Amino acid sequence: MTDPIRPQALPNDQALRDRAAVVIPGGMYGHMKTEKALPPSWPQFWSRSEGAYGWDVDDNRYIDFMCAWGPMVLGYRNPVVESAAAKQAESGDTISGPSARMVELAELMVETAPHADWAMFGKNGNDATAAAIRIARSATGKAKFLKATPAYHGANDWFTPVLSGVPADERSNIGYFDYNSIASLEAAVAEHSGDIAAIILTPFQHDSFIPQELVDPEFARRARELATAQGAALILDEVRTGLRLDIRGAWESIGVRPDMTAYSKAIANGYPIAVVVGADSLREGATQVYVTGSFWYSAVPMAAAMATIRHATEIDAPSVMEASGARFKEGLEAQGAAAGLPLSITGPVQMPHLSFADDPELKKVFAFTDAAVRRGVLLHPWHNMFLSTAHTPGIIDEALGRTQDAFADIADLGF
Amino acid sequence: MTDPIRPQALPNDQALRDRAAVVIPGGMYGHMKTEKALPPSWPQFWSRSEGAYGWDVDDNRYIDFMCAWGPMVLGYRNPVVESAAAKQAESGDTISGPSARMVELAELMVETAPHADWAMFGKNGNDATAAAIRIARSATGKAKFLKATPAYHGANDWFTPVLSGVPADERSNIGYFDYNSIASLEAAVAEHSGDIAAIILTPFQHDSFIPQELVDPEFARRARELATAQGAALILDEVRTGLRLDIRGAWESIGVRPDMTAYSKAIANGYPIAVVVGADSLREGATQVYVTGSFWYSAVPMAAAMATIRHATEIDAPSVMEASGARFKEGLEAQGAAAGLPLSITGPVQMPHLSFADDPELKKVFAFTDAAVRRGVLLHPWHNMFLSTAHTPGIIDEALGRTQDAFADIADLGF
Repeated sequence: MTDPIRPQALPNDQALRDRAAVVIPGGMYGHMKTEKALPPSWPQFWSRSEGAYGWDVDDNRYIDFMCAWGPMVLGYRNPVVESAAAKQAESGDTISGPSARMVELAELMVETAPHADWAMFGKNGNDATAAAIRIARSATGKAKFLKATPAYHGANDWFTPVLSGVPADERSNIGYFDYNSIASLEAAVAEHSGDIAAIILTPFQHDSFIPQELVDPEFARRARELATAQGAALILDEVRTGLRLDIRGAWESIGVRPDMTAYSKAIANGYPIAVVVGADSLREGATQVYVTGSFWYSAVPMAAAMATIRHATEIDAPSVMEASGARFKEGLEAQGAAAGLPLSITGPVQMPHLSFADDPELKKVFAFTDAAVRRGVLLHPWHNMFLSTAHTPGIIDEALGRTQDAFADIADLGF
Repeated sequence: MTDPIRPQALPNDQALRDRAAVVIPGGMYGHMKTEKALPPSWPQFWSRSEGAYGWDVDDNRYIDFMCAWGPMVLGYRNPVVESAAAKQAESGDTISGPSARMVELAELMVETAPHADWAMFGKNGNDATAAAIRIARSATGKAKFLKATPAYHGANDWFTPVLSGVPADERSNIGYFDYNSIASLEAAVAEHSGDIAAIILTPFQHDSFIPQELVDPEFARRARELATAQGAALILDEVRTGLRLDIRGAWESIGVRPDMTAYSKAIANGYPIAVVVGADSLREGATQVYVTGSFWYSAVPMAAAMATIRHATEIDAPSVMEASGARFKEGLEAQGAAAGLPLSITGPVQMPHLSFADDPELKKVFAFTDAAVRRGVLLHPWHNMFLSTAHTPGIIDEALGRTQDAFADIADLGF
């Protein structure tokens, strides 16, 4: 064993959970709620982060394969990004108008993404996906948009996976299809033909609870054709994938270009910002809509985004993460096979999703990730995970040493 | 004259506008777009801020009565807030789970607002108003909500004042009434009776283009009664007013308590955060809904919010701003009267709105604010402005010296 196993009990975490139960509904909300959703060993509260590591409030250290659920891509507290942010903060952040950083960042986005002629900024991913839908509707004069099901694109009324508090007619303008199914996409287009403002897609299928699936290039091309034929905008939701797959655009390698792309998460290595970029054909629509927020113009996240994008480009961050991700995938799959618990890492290796064979109720994956967390490796049982460029081969090997122990920990559970 | 007048031309600003025109639709978007909406002297791009001052990219200094459109309340780069934020940043900001700061801030919100039993967090004001609607719908099982018209509560499809890209049926669950009109509120309630999840109101009427109006306590009480009778939630939108009117809650002084309150803007003196607080009656609804965002759990804005709220409470920030606001209002109204251009400052003096008598096309107010901006005082012609605790009596007097010059500048325009 590489290290003594962490105790199951986390007294500081429990004390905070008890306090949170009083003043936060359900003790926590959204995608960071651990109770009921995650293995018992997952900490609810975190104290600090550095490089590829996070520490819980009981000062246990984890190799962090969530990367803040995506935003961290160059390592926590990356000095290049922090220095750019600190320099900007000396002048101003949220002030009475945008700074020059907004223009510079828009120029950088247009330079980076071949399909982009313009850029606009928000805070969270859903700001960008919702703005893209609004822009498409403004440009086309049409009401409907098509999305895959379930396909998470944010938590607003259109997209939330939980329907409590969402009247059915708030979704009356949405048509649905199955990801990678040309037939179902064609059927959705046929059903709403003539009233389709947009088709929105993630670069690959990264729904929760099920293995991930890379895009079928034929499907991507057909989506492009159908959007064009309908006069609809093809929107690529790169909120999770931005800077991790292909910095130019996730579908550049298959030669399919969207009309608009939504970014957020990793774009500023943890600073809050979202971006919509689009083609000239949507510029007038983007000019006509009114989308805004009090903090959408703040300069520090824009300075951080420029430093992040430039540095990620310089070091070819996707390749760095791909190499480490492949190392992690191979190691973990070999360990599972040796333990008689075959598992698969699906999706792009830099955004791995973990699942075990013959595990319909997710019992194996919950048990394994529970053990891995106690061994100091933060793994998620049903959501995609994230690597960063701080996940060096050495850290991957350290993680694999710990997951080896985790397999030993669950050996006698009778799986 | 206190100072030489600023040149009309802003070469650095113009150069950035020219670049922005290429890569940002319409050159800028949202509430910070100056072109067509604001006097020609308004800078589009800003370089830095400190205390009550902002500097444009041509290094002209302004006494800033926009306060970043609300977020700045204790002065830009307030040392108390900056120190709390920097301390938190050393440990972590956006990490793989919430920090203890979230629990501490929720406790502080519950302690501060007498009607609040719980708190949840987002990024922008619209995150908070939309979450409150969702929670009300979840708790009541009803679909409709009532809002005043026009009443800005954010820029999502429900609330945006610009309808481009918003299909009419995206607003099919909204009923409308006139602010401060009991009869029209009663009519809206009667029309949707039995299907009303919420009534949402700002603490006073602060719509753009028209003079502001304080709430009629009878109207507030009637809204409270009607919401209760309908089993609907009364939501107070304090996104603009939070920390400026009454730290406990804007309607505490008139004895009307909402079921939920939405905050954002000033709560963290410029750091991006939004808050919904609510009563126990909505706790279960708040537990059931799924609202989230990648950056909603970040620790630095929460540390900044705690420092801001505590410091604002210690120094009784609303009273400080009220005194300076009264000084500014009296001075400006006296100057207008003396110049034969009678003007009114409406609304709470710490959130002043400027309008001239006999100015239906806003020509006078555009000319005056244009001159004021060239004299180094950032005044808005049709949106409410904001004071901060950094707007000391000395700075107010300096501003009044400059507005005196601005009146002289427009004396020969023939108004």
